[in-house]
Amino acid sequence: MTSPVSPDKLDTVLAEVDRGLDASLERLKALLRIKSISTDPAYAKDCRQAAEWLAQALGQEGFEAFVRPTPGHPMVVAHDRSAEGPHVLFYGHYDVQPVDPVELWNTDPFEPQIVALPDGTRQIVCRGASDDKGQLMTFIEACRAWRTATGGLPVKVSILLEGEEESGGKNLPPFIEANAAELAADIALVCDTDMWDRQTPSITTMLRGLVGEEIEITCADKDLHSGMFGSAARNPNQVLADIIASLRDVDGSVTIDGFYDDVAELPDAVKDQWKGLGFDEKAFLAGAGLSIPAGENDRSVLEQIWARPTCEINGIWGGYTGEGFKTVIPAKASAKISFRLVSGMQPDKIRQAFRAHVRARLPADCRVTFKEHGASPALTVPADGPLLGRALDALSAEWGKPAVITGSGGSIPVGGEFKRLIGLDTLFIGFAQNDDRIHSPNEKYDLASFHRGIRSWARVLAAFAG
Amino acid sequence: MTSPVSPDKLDTVLAEVDRGLDASLERLKALLRIKSISTDPAYAKDCRQAAEWLAQALGQEGFEAFVRPTPGHPMVVAHDRSAEGPHVLFYGHYDVQPVDPVELWNTDPFEPQIVALPDGTRQIVCRGASDDKGQLMTFIEACRAWRTATGGLPVKVSILLEGEEESGGKNLPPFIEANAAELAADIALVCDTDMWDRQTPSITTMLRGLVGEEIEITCADKDLHSGMFGSAARNPNQVLADIIASLRDVDGSVTIDGFYDDVAELPDAVKDQWKGLGFDEKAFLAGAGLSIPAGENDRSVLEQIWARPTCEINGIWGGYTGEGFKTVIPAKASAKISFRLVSGMQPDKIRQAFRAHVRARLPADCRVTFKEHGASPALTVPADGPLLGRALDALSAEWGKPAVITGSGGSIPVGGEFKRLIGLDTLFIGFAQNDDRIHSPNEKYDLASFHRGIRSWARVLAAFAG
Repeated sequence: MTSPVSPDKLDTVLAEVDRGLDASLERLKALLRIKSISTDPAYAKDCRQAAEWLAQALGQEGFEAFVRPTPGHPMVVAHDRSAEGPHVLFYGHYDVQPVDPVELWNTDPFEPQIVALPDGTRQIVCRGASDDKGQLMTFIEACRAWRTATGGLPVKVSILLEGEEESGGKNLPPFIEANAAELAADIALVCDTDMWDRQTPSITTMLRGLVGEEIEITCADKDLHSGMFGSAARNPNQVLADIIASLRDVDGSVTIDGFYDDVAELPDAVKDQWKGLGFDEKAFLAGAGLSIPAGENDRSVLEQIWARPTCEINGIWGGYTGEGFKTVIPAKASAKISFRLVSGMQPDKIRQAFRAHVRARLPADCRVTFKEHGASPALTVPADGPLLGRALDALSAEWGKPAVITGSGGSIPVGGEFKRLIGLDTLFIGFAQNDDRIHSPNEKYDLASFHRGIRSWARVLAAFAG
Repeated sequence: MTSPVSPDKLDTVLAEVDRGLDASLERLKALLRIKSISTDPAYAKDCRQAAEWLAQALGQEGFEAFVRPTPGHPMVVAHDRSAEGPHVLFYGHYDVQPVDPVELWNTDPFEPQIVALPDGTRQIVCRGASDDKGQLMTFIEACRAWRTATGGLPVKVSILLEGEEESGGKNLPPFIEANAAELAADIALVCDTDMWDRQTPSITTMLRGLVGEEIEITCADKDLHSGMFGSAARNPNQVLADIIASLRDVDGSVTIDGFYDDVAELPDAVKDQWKGLGFDEKAFLAGAGLSIPAGENDRSVLEQIWARPTCEINGIWGGYTGEGFKTVIPAKASAKISFRLVSGMQPDKIRQAFRAHVRARLPADCRVTFKEHGASPALTVPADGPLLGRALDALSAEWGKPAVITGSGGSIPVGGEFKRLIGLDTLFIGFAQNDDRIHSPNEKYDLASFHRGIRSWARVLAAFAG
């Protein structure tokens, strides 16, 4: 049984969001100060601290909240199932990316700064400000406003916060599977995506998947002197470069055997809708200081980033990289390589095809080792669910502009796992901007994203109750 | 006026070398303990300490010895011009290579260890044991033995010890030029090369030159998220790999325009002599854990390393290289690249051709910066000088096997500079073995190289006096 939320009641909640904004911001800052870099074992304690901080904050807001162990960083699980109406499962992640190159930050990466721009916009600058601490706090703060203004939530709410989203997330699927009954709900909500632009809210229904690989090429059995051995001894830096160069064709396509076999063309309806978005390729690239699209040259930039798979070299290293010069032929060279997948592609098939591609190009007296760094398929969310329609309307009401349905080049594995393991569809609703510098120095979240993000969730929860 | 050294007198000197060996070794160990890594500014004090230690040691042996400032690490200059007979200028370098990867050393890289192998050979293991502290001390200890046994040296001796051989050596040419009168001599002697094998002494008459370059490729103006930008934004790791891959052809040749233009074919006489050396390609490569020559596939391995130019990637880095994974498209990627040159090639021409090659392959919205790391032409020493013949005889007498004339893949710029700036020919006489692991972890110098190297110099000095 559900009962619609009256406009007056919703206004009371929205007024509470506005009234409490400063306090909401202080709570976000406290969370941002915790250095929860999940990929680096040196920050394991900080990750635990972030989980404990969140469980305590949720407990204070009336949730039953728990820090739950995993073989890696812990999960936070919280429930308030006292309301009538549908049951939502909200997902966010409290871990953040590393901060290097740290010298490019204007201020301490873990000391949040409020920066006012000449045009009057205000931004919260800190690692995690957008991805994902700022975003997840919009939902938690919306729940707080509901409780403060009305004494309770309008729908049943469960919350799952992960600490390994930025580092492979390998403990998430077994955790969901082991706690399937507890995590059962009607729909999942994820706040880890962008708005279409500063004025236009969006719900993302297509997300790319991800396969991460690390390779190490070994040639000689020790570092060699390039004077004594130069040209005769195989140089792993050269071998690695040759292999990486062979991964992409001059036209920007990936050359791995069978890479595009399972890639479907976009439905015409989607193509038409995307054309209607008026995406400005030049402005998008210019935002990164670039002007020439690097992907498949027969595809639009929007297709390249939302609907086409790619191969990216995220890291490369070998030999002497310090000050000055060392005339060494190193024994080893390495790279971290990731593949973004689109709907239909199978992560393991791509991983194996990549490994075969590397092995086929390896000189017979060299060796390669592979290390797996996570895998998730792409996700396409049905665009016709009733809750999706209600959420679009709620977002449109808050922002005064029709909400749009978009794709995303990023990978949020949890959506696919919710579907696969507990049958849940996911709505990806986020308030980030594409200039948030996530994963980069000086990451920021617009104060408007934070404030109106909280208001948006307050409206979405009301809409679901109706 | 010169007077031949009598066999009895020489025997007295050689006996003194044998008698004093333990003390000689202790002095070498004291020098080895000084961490004189010239390429890393953190070790500047250690470099100065090594220079001061050497000047003091030479002073105690009766040389007039000085530490001379340069804009970089200091030079050591010493003279004993009291003898009749020809005047030799001995050159060595007191600086050493960095020790990374330090985890591959079996013991502290700067604490010399005497290691006894099962076959009875003994080795001094330490950074610099061979290159070049152990080698330069063979000459200094030979002078000491001469003085102890006979009261003086048989020829005039000047000594020049450099502290930047491993880091570009850019202050050496101006120093030689500014001190041309003081450094004038009849011939230069350099102890920084290998023996042909453990039994066969050699004098090296062909040395490759070296050009060092560092490139930094910049694409976006900041690090980007590979989800948001992946495939559309140019990845500098990929651009760098493409450029590096383009430097070498499938047949192992370098593809830079005009790279081989000034490379002469070996004279038949030299080819024949090298064939006579019985070089074992398989064993040479197997010593490095390899089996397939990587250079031009229509050339023998000996030609590849002694008489053919090459391009080697000494270091490569870009993006995230730490623990775990980061889905970043970095803004920048870099490489340290060196070219070994052979006789006839002009360093600056090669540098400019390389830069043009890179620029021609750079996407129009990316940038590249180049940093110069030293340049020296190759050197060919006339094989018919009278002192060369005497030195060969002296070495043959010590080792009981005819000394041979060889090439070297390494670069010792000082030879070319002596010729160019003060008209001196150089004899490269060294006692290193090709398994000395110079520039690598666990560098060593055979105790036999050290002991018989001292004896060899004692004989060479005697031969020059005759």
